[in-house]
Amino acid sequence: MPRPVFLSLDGLDGTGKSTQCRLLVEWLAAQGVPVTACADPGGTPLGQELRKLLLFGRDHRIGTRTEALLFMASRAQLVEEVIRPALARGEVIVSDRFLLANVVYQGHAGGLSPEELWQVGTFATGGPEHVEPDLTLVLDLAPEIAVARRKREADRMEARGTDYAERVRAGFRLELARRPDRLRLVDAAADVNGVQQTVRREVIGVLGDRGWNVKE
Amino acid sequence: MPRPVFLSLDGLDGTGKSTQCRLLVEWLAAQGVPVTACADPGGTPLGQELRKLLLFGRDHRIGTRTEALLFMASRAQLVEEVIRPALARGEVIVSDRFLLANVVYQGHAGGLSPEELWQVGTFATGGPEHVEPDLTLVLDLAPEIAVARRKREADRMEARGTDYAERVRAGFRLELARRPDRLRLVDAAADVNGVQQTVRREVIGVLGDRGWNVKE
Repeated sequence: MPRPVFLSLDGLDGTGKSTQCRLLVEWLAAQGVPVTACADPGGTPLGQELRKLLLFGRDHRIGTRTEALLFMASRAQLVEEVIRPALARGEVIVSDRFLLANVVYQGHAGGLSPEELWQVGTFATGGPEHVEPDLTLVLDLAPEIAVARRKREADRMEARGTDYAERVRAGFRLELARRPDRLRLVDAAADVNGVQQTVRREVIGVLGDRGWNVKE
Repeated sequence: MPRPVFLSLDGLDGTGKSTQCRLLVEWLAAQGVPVTACADPGGTPLGQELRKLLLFGRDHRIGTRTEALLFMASRAQLVEEVIRPALARGEVIVSDRFLLANVVYQGHAGGLSPEELWQVGTFATGGPEHVEPDLTLVLDLAPEIAVARRKREADRMEARGTDYAERVRAGFRLELARRPDRLRLVDAAADVNGVQQTVRREVIGVLGDRGWNVKE
């Protein structure tokens, strides 16, 4: 019996994260793997409301700690409503971002303590019995290229500019160095299919370890 | 120069907490003390929205961790937007509930770890430089009397019944025993004026220590 696997993808906006998530989910499903896709923040009715409040709530001056805690609340609900049940059904979960994003955006780039954010994140994701991704793929790209790839109107996070994006990128790299067992860097400079190939190769490794038989 | 003081009142709904807060604020203001009143959850535009979501969001199944984190987010914003500025102006702050309520309701009564809630609360209220009430008065009353005094329609919290209220009361008493320096029990069985007299006596003590000259 293959064991459940929790995967997440992260990285700056414009690195193609959401596209890569979608392609990964489609590929897994096509191979008969029971897969649950979700997005953090979001992924539940409550999470959707909080996401709106977070990203477009320009009328509210939201402090960095408040922002981090709203992400944490959304994540707590996502874990309880979506991720734990999917793990219990023995599925593979693909999450578009997870706790790491808070550690990097509000922590390394935003001035809060990354250690405190990991700690609050442990509480949010279940306390002593918390869940965490078995593997997080961090899509890496120079901020100026990521910005050029973004076509949508900049949201609240993205409006913070290139300096902030550079600090985010540096934060991701720091965490990658700290947790090489669970975080893996993926060069996102290639085209969509090239990046997806790298993503699949990493996923095949961790799925194989847990008894899943998937092929490129 | 008198130093700023942060006071909070807590206790079961129906103990007269909000009325006692109002009377305390009026009495302080009448003596010329610069006073800021606030309520937690609530107290800011963002907090008001979260409060609505928390208390009347019956359409969303909200988990206990999510609930605690929404309270924490509201509190983080309250600290940044209201409490820190008031402390910086050298005022006396009276808050209708604060972090202790989370520790008791979601912790002792709700099954989460009180220690983890104190820890997340430290993050929410400023991390290493967090703010906390100098004195919290806990209005204590037998749950069946508190219920009888409540005239409003029961909200999401209150709908949980007397067993839950008993666990809340026991939780308050446990925290009172643990932190006798900052928490004080006030018997709320007396009439409004009787309780207010006890409240004022406690407040006179802590304000006197900080250089304020107030009289009954």
